[in-house]
Amino acid sequence: MAKIKRAKKAAPKTRKATTQTAGKAKLKHIPWSSIELEDLNPLLQRHFIVGQNVMVARVLLKRGCIVPEHSHHNEQITYILEGALKFWIDGKEIVVNAGEVLTIPPYMPHKAEAVEDTVDLDIFSPPRADWINKTDKYLRGGK
Amino acid sequence: MAKIKRAKKAAPKTRKATTQTAGKAKLKHIPWSSIELEDLNPLLQRHFIVGQNVMVARVLLKRGCIVPEHSHHNEQITYILEGALKFWIDGKEIVVNAGEVLTIPPYMPHKAEAVEDTVDLDIFSPPRADWINKTDKYLRGGK
Repeated sequence: MAKIKRAKKAAPKTRKATTQTAGKAKLKHIPWSSIELEDLNPLLQRHFIVGQNVMVARVLLKRGCIVPEHSHHNEQITYILEGALKFWIDGKEIVVNAGEVLTIPPYMPHKAEAVEDTVDLDIFSPPRADWINKTDKYLRGGK
Repeated sequence: MAKIKRAKKAAPKTRKATTQTAGKAKLKHIPWSSIELEDLNPLLQRHFIVGQNVMVARVLLKRGCIVPEHSHHNEQITYILEGALKFWIDGKEIVVNAGEVLTIPPYMPHKAEAVEDTVDLDIFSPPRADWINKTDKYLRGGK
């Protein structure tokens, strides 16, 4: 009997630095300035880089921006590069200032407010499918 | 027959912010300034925060510091906060400047040199057991 070869799915011919899909890990050299910032609401912008099991996002929040309470299965590490975020989490209020980190376990609900204009680095494992697929409605259209 | 209960291992009574062990994800608020920098060699210092499936490290390299070629199963995302690192990777030389990111797939050998005094944020998934256990000899004692 003739051997049947299963055709491999053709890879896309071009892949821009801004393409954000989860998948196989690849060597990529990406200036943040080359990745378009997404406007989620008037006080919130974001761009991110997606690896295989990990994702890193730069999140820009204007003072007063509220991230409504939400939770996700993804483990999160938040590193505040500039400004400050106040979190409501695990029954506590925690202000995370520039130069500080908050580690958030999977499924732990949290809400945040930008106390100042803030540059926040968010690390997730695994990557946030809802951010990649733009189904993160809790962030879109709010204050 | 009497039922035998297996005693649970007692948890340590205190856990400092600087304790760096992989394990269950926990809510932690950690200023980088509270985590002692480890001197790996005269040109290289490092501290890190370990989660369950992800780890983030601040690596401080003085100009001329060489990170010898090495590889690891961990996926890596390198974000240069200040300065610049030159990488030898995948047959190429890539200079990663401040504000730029390099994503390094698992098992891909890489070497680096600090072109300037550099603050480098390294993200790994899973956490680097060799860094946690201090068995990363390739980084210790070299120039």
